[in-house]
Amino acid sequence: MKLKYAIVGTGALGGFYGGMLAHAGNGVHFLFHNDYDFICKNGLMVDSVLGNFHLQNINAYYSTSQMPKCDVVLVCLKTTNNIILKKILPPLLHPKTCVILVQNGLKIEEELATSFPDLSIAGGMAFICSNKIGEGHINHLDYGKITIGSYQGENKKLLEQVCNDFIAARVQAEFTGDLEKSRWKKLIWNIPYNGLCVVLNTTTEQLMNNPKTYELVRDLMLEVLNAANICGIRIRESFVQEMLDSTRIMKPYAPSMKLDFDFKRPLEIRAIYSSPLAEARSHGFEMKKVSMLEQQLQFIQDSYLK
Amino acid sequence: MKLKYAIVGTGALGGFYGGMLAHAGNGVHFLFHNDYDFICKNGLMVDSVLGNFHLQNINAYYSTSQMPKCDVVLVCLKTTNNIILKKILPPLLHPKTCVILVQNGLKIEEELATSFPDLSIAGGMAFICSNKIGEGHINHLDYGKITIGSYQGENKKLLEQVCNDFIAARVQAEFTGDLEKSRWKKLIWNIPYNGLCVVLNTTTEQLMNNPKTYELVRDLMLEVLNAANICGIRIRESFVQEMLDSTRIMKPYAPSMKLDFDFKRPLEIRAIYSSPLAEARSHGFEMKKVSMLEQQLQFIQDSYLK
Repeated sequence: MKLKYAIVGTGALGGFYGGMLAHAGNGVHFLFHNDYDFICKNGLMVDSVLGNFHLQNINAYYSTSQMPKCDVVLVCLKTTNNIILKKILPPLLHPKTCVILVQNGLKIEEELATSFPDLSIAGGMAFICSNKIGEGHINHLDYGKITIGSYQGENKKLLEQVCNDFIAARVQAEFTGDLEKSRWKKLIWNIPYNGLCVVLNTTTEQLMNNPKTYELVRDLMLEVLNAANICGIRIRESFVQEMLDSTRIMKPYAPSMKLDFDFKRPLEIRAIYSSPLAEARSHGFEMKKVSMLEQQLQFIQDSYLK
Repeated sequence: MKLKYAIVGTGALGGFYGGMLAHAGNGVHFLFHNDYDFICKNGLMVDSVLGNFHLQNINAYYSTSQMPKCDVVLVCLKTTNNIILKKILPPLLHPKTCVILVQNGLKIEEELATSFPDLSIAGGMAFICSNKIGEGHINHLDYGKITIGSYQGENKKLLEQVCNDFIAARVQAEFTGDLEKSRWKKLIWNIPYNGLCVVLNTTTEQLMNNPKTYELVRDLMLEVLNAANICGIRIRESFVQEMLDSTRIMKPYAPSMKLDFDFKRPLEIRAIYSSPLAEARSHGFEMKKVSMLEQQLQFIQDSYLK
């Protein structure tokens, strides 16, 4: 049986992943906000290293109250907007719906479970360079793999089917049996690059080319790795070098937080920095450089948001 | 017997301290660089909270080779220029000359002693808000106290006389028997404010008004204090709160490193950050947040200097 998908938040991630699923013939229902009128007229354009495509007639909605109940909801919002999930998710849910948070950070599934205690929740980690470059226009630059894991351990079968749908749609996908570990591994990349690109107003490439910031990126990665290990998540130290090496050969890329900064949007400080800091502190470990990055980011955000 | 003074580097500090000494009738010989022609024509203007004054006929020089030998040389250059001292100091020195490095940072007297093993060396710490605001034009905004101490312990009498000359010239001055301790105390202020004003492109006032950067400033101060204590320099922890409180009531002020950044000049990273970091590491202590600030500053400087 084919799964029915909802995409909540059709931006850089939702537009790419939902677009690929729809392009491959899956039933996908997209929630739009500002782009809704444009999409109805012009459809969705995805420029991708896997090949460009254009979806003229897509199932576009302006409100979840108009959408059908779906088997799988891919939440591709920024975590800074998660406050609205409590209100907008219910129309999409049938008793077996699984909501996958394709987002960065820690503790986000836990927060959603507080609002929806009986909901089947999963997490998705996207290792992708993708930007929204205009109305209804996504630019997928590099990578694209999505890793999906269950929050409470249930629904393995369904999530594996989701992975298979992605793979059939030419998106690399992997089921993980340890969501918490995958989230920490993602943080090892996100924490240094997102924050430093904002604080130093620069790109991943510049950070890697300067010996002092290369060293700082590695220091930050090792702090996160140590925190994970102290929290009982075993990640081997060689993973840090793998991340450095794969970033070295990545196309010059502005991480999502840098784009949020450039467009004066709220930064995902809480999910990416404050929650991991709190988790590590609750185990008696202080990530000092990560803490400094959080302090600097908060100052920067406070300077442009009221 | 009156002391004969040389001022090497007549900027925000040299212009104020030398100007005050000259204004009070001391024999002061000033070395100028870019401002030399202007000064010969127009003299030196000091706008000061202690009262403005103008020195029309001052002993101005373009090269130390034209200057007389002096009893006291106040070096008011940036430490980034200390490389030239080896070449320019000798004409100023008689066998009993004392050279006072009125500069920020650590290990600077040690470095000068390497070039001049027999020289009498002292250090001066200026707690002052003063800027050079135009050719031959100094603006002294607040504070002004200078603390002077001997590097090797000799010359106490002479340095006390220097302090008395300053006091007679209405400049607060104090002799310290522990130069190393005074240097570390100065670092407790310099390390957070100089670096953060550059990295976050802001002012001391903004740093103090935001709760996250207030916390970060205090974290950095406590790291420096801990490093000092581990290096055998006893500074009580209440000194951190004193520094925070006195900065809170300070007029909004751009620290010298912020001005260097704004004018794309070299930053005093080595004296203010790298040397204290190395000193603490040699005692087995890593100042993690200070280290991150050094890494960020080096990246920023590398981005605008070749």
